[in-house]
Amino acid sequence: MSLVNVGTVAFDAIETPFGKTDKIIGGACTYISLAASYFTKGAKIVSVVGDDFPQDVIDMFSDRDISTEGLQVKQGEKTFFWSGKYHADMNSRDTIDTQLNVLETFDPIIPDAYQDCEYLMLGNLAPQAQLQVIDRLEKRPKLIVLDTMNFWMEVALDDLLTVIKEVDVLTINDEEARLLSGEYSLRKAAKKILTMGPKYLIIKKGEHGALLFNDERVFFAPALPLEEVFDPTGAGDTFAGGFIGYLASSGNISWENMKNAIIMGSALASFTVEKFGIERLRDLTMEEIADRISQFAELTNFTMEYPFQEEEQI
Amino acid sequence: MSLVNVGTVAFDAIETPFGKTDKIIGGACTYISLAASYFTKGAKIVSVVGDDFPQDVIDMFSDRDISTEGLQVKQGEKTFFWSGKYHADMNSRDTIDTQLNVLETFDPIIPDAYQDCEYLMLGNLAPQAQLQVIDRLEKRPKLIVLDTMNFWMEVALDDLLTVIKEVDVLTINDEEARLLSGEYSLRKAAKKILTMGPKYLIIKKGEHGALLFNDERVFFAPALPLEEVFDPTGAGDTFAGGFIGYLASSGNISWENMKNAIIMGSALASFTVEKFGIERLRDLTMEEIADRISQFAELTNFTMEYPFQEEEQI
Repeated sequence: MSLVNVGTVAFDAIETPFGKTDKIIGGACTYISLAASYFTKGAKIVSVVGDDFPQDVIDMFSDRDISTEGLQVKQGEKTFFWSGKYHADMNSRDTIDTQLNVLETFDPIIPDAYQDCEYLMLGNLAPQAQLQVIDRLEKRPKLIVLDTMNFWMEVALDDLLTVIKEVDVLTINDEEARLLSGEYSLRKAAKKILTMGPKYLIIKKGEHGALLFNDERVFFAPALPLEEVFDPTGAGDTFAGGFIGYLASSGNISWENMKNAIIMGSALASFTVEKFGIERLRDLTMEEIADRISQFAELTNFTMEYPFQEEEQI
Repeated sequence: MSLVNVGTVAFDAIETPFGKTDKIIGGACTYISLAASYFTKGAKIVSVVGDDFPQDVIDMFSDRDISTEGLQVKQGEKTFFWSGKYHADMNSRDTIDTQLNVLETFDPIIPDAYQDCEYLMLGNLAPQAQLQVIDRLEKRPKLIVLDTMNFWMEVALDDLLTVIKEVDVLTINDEEARLLSGEYSLRKAAKKILTMGPKYLIIKKGEHGALLFNDERVFFAPALPLEEVFDPTGAGDTFAGGFIGYLASSGNISWENMKNAIIMGSALASFTVEKFGIERLRDLTMEEIADRISQFAELTNFTMEYPFQEEEQI
C-alpha cells in the first residue's frame, strides 16, 4: 500500500546523562521512514535538506527501498539543525539551538509518482506545510495520521486546528493533550479532542506507554521497561512510523489492527532509545522485532476473564 | 485460606481539588481488609484504635466476615489521625497533620485463632511492628507481602531492611524503589531490590499502573484511564488488599496467578479513587468487579504474536 511520509530530515546534536554527540542524522521523517520501512516497502519521503546533507544517508534510504524523489536538496543552503540536552530523568529536555535553515522556506513538492498515496504520515512540522501536502494530493488518502507538538499549539493554533480537522489519527503526548483540550484528565481530554476532527487519538506518555482512543474505546500499550533509556530522541517519530508502516502493510485499519499497530510502534521505539539517533533503528532484523513483540505480549497479556467463575457455576 | 492483615485503622481528613472531608474512616488495614474481603472470607485484622473509633465501622468489618479479634481498642486513648491535601495533579500531596496517638505504643497482639495464618499482609507501618508480627507467628506463613513507604527508608532503614529480608513480595512506589535501590532505571532498581530478600517486587506507579518483577520476568498492569480521580487515598492499600485477597482465595501463588492478582488489585483500586475514603470500596458487587476486569482485558490484551507471519509462511 502506498505510504507517504512528511517531516524533517535533519541534523541533531544531543546530550544525555550517558553521553554527547556531534552533528548526527535526525529529523522526524528520518525516524518515521526507517521505522515504516520494516513493514512497507516503497514508502515515499517529502522533505527538504541543504547541500551539506550526506549522500550516503540518502543512499541508505534507497537501500531500504524508500523513495527520495520528494526529498528536495537545496543547493547553497543548510540542513535544519536542532541541538538539545536531556535532564537526568530523560522525560524533559532543553533546546540549546535551533537553526531552521532550509525549513524556513519549505514548500513541499509532491512528485507525480506520489499521487497514489493511500497512507499519509504527517510528521511534526509547521501546520501550514502539513496542510499544503494534503491540498496537493489529488485524492484524499485512506488514512491520514498527524503528529505535532506544543510549539505549534502556542504559535500557530488556528492553522493547527485546521489541519487537525482534516486527519483521521492525531498523535500527541500527554502534556500536549492537556494543552490542546484544557482538560487535565486524559480521558476527558480525549473526548474533547475527538470532537475536533480526528476519529482516533493516540496519547503518548513516553516511558509510561501510549493510549489509543476512539469514540467508544480505549487501548493501552505500555513502554517496555528497559534497563536504560540512552537517548529518547526520535522515539515518538519511530512510534508513528511503526504505527503507520504496519497499518499500510496490512491495509487493515480496524480497531483490532490499530491495537497491533500501536504495539508495533512501541516495539520499534524501544529500540530507538537504546542508542543515539538512528544507530539502533537503521539495521534491525525481523527476528529482533518479533522477539520484542513477544516481550510486549508477555508484559501485558493475562487470561483471567471473570473473577470467581467457578463459584458462580456451582 | 487464612489471611491476616496488619496495618493502621485510622481517621483521615482529606482535601483534593474536588472537595474536602471532615474526619472520615481511613488507614491501610481498613482498605486492605475491605478489598481482600471480596475474595477471602474470614480475613483477620491486627491493628489498634482508640475508644473514639466508631463501633459501626467495627460492625461493618464483622458484616463483611472480617475478624476484629486482633483489633485492640485502647480505652482513654485516641485513634491515629492523618490529614493531607493533594496537589492539582493528584500525584503528590502535603501532610497537614499527623497524630500518632495509639500508634505510638502499638504492640501487635496475635490471637491464638490467627496462628493458622497462611497469607500475611503487612500494611504500611513501623518496620519494627511489622517484624514483631512475623516473630509472633509460630509458623512462617506461605506468603508474606510487605508494603512500606519512603518515610521508613529515611528514619528506620536498618529495621526496614531486616523485615524486607523476611518477606516474599515487596510493594512500593516508583520513587521509593529509586530511593531504596539508588538506581533511576526501574528495571535496575528491581534487580537490586530482589537481592535484598523478596522473590517478587511490585512497583506501583499510580495513574501509570504497576509492574511485577521476579528474577526473570516482568508483568505490567495499567491503571484504568478514569474520567476523574477524585481521591487517591487508599489506592495503594486497596491494590495490596485485592492482590493478597485474590491470591489467598485461590491458594495459587504461581507467576500466572500473581499477574491475575495484580490486575485484581488494580481493578479494586480503580473504584477506591472514584470517591472519598472507603465510600466506593465498602459496597461493591461482584458484577461491578467483573465488569472492570473485562475493561482491563479490553484495555491491554492484543493477539498479534508475530509480525509478518503470513509472509514467513510463504
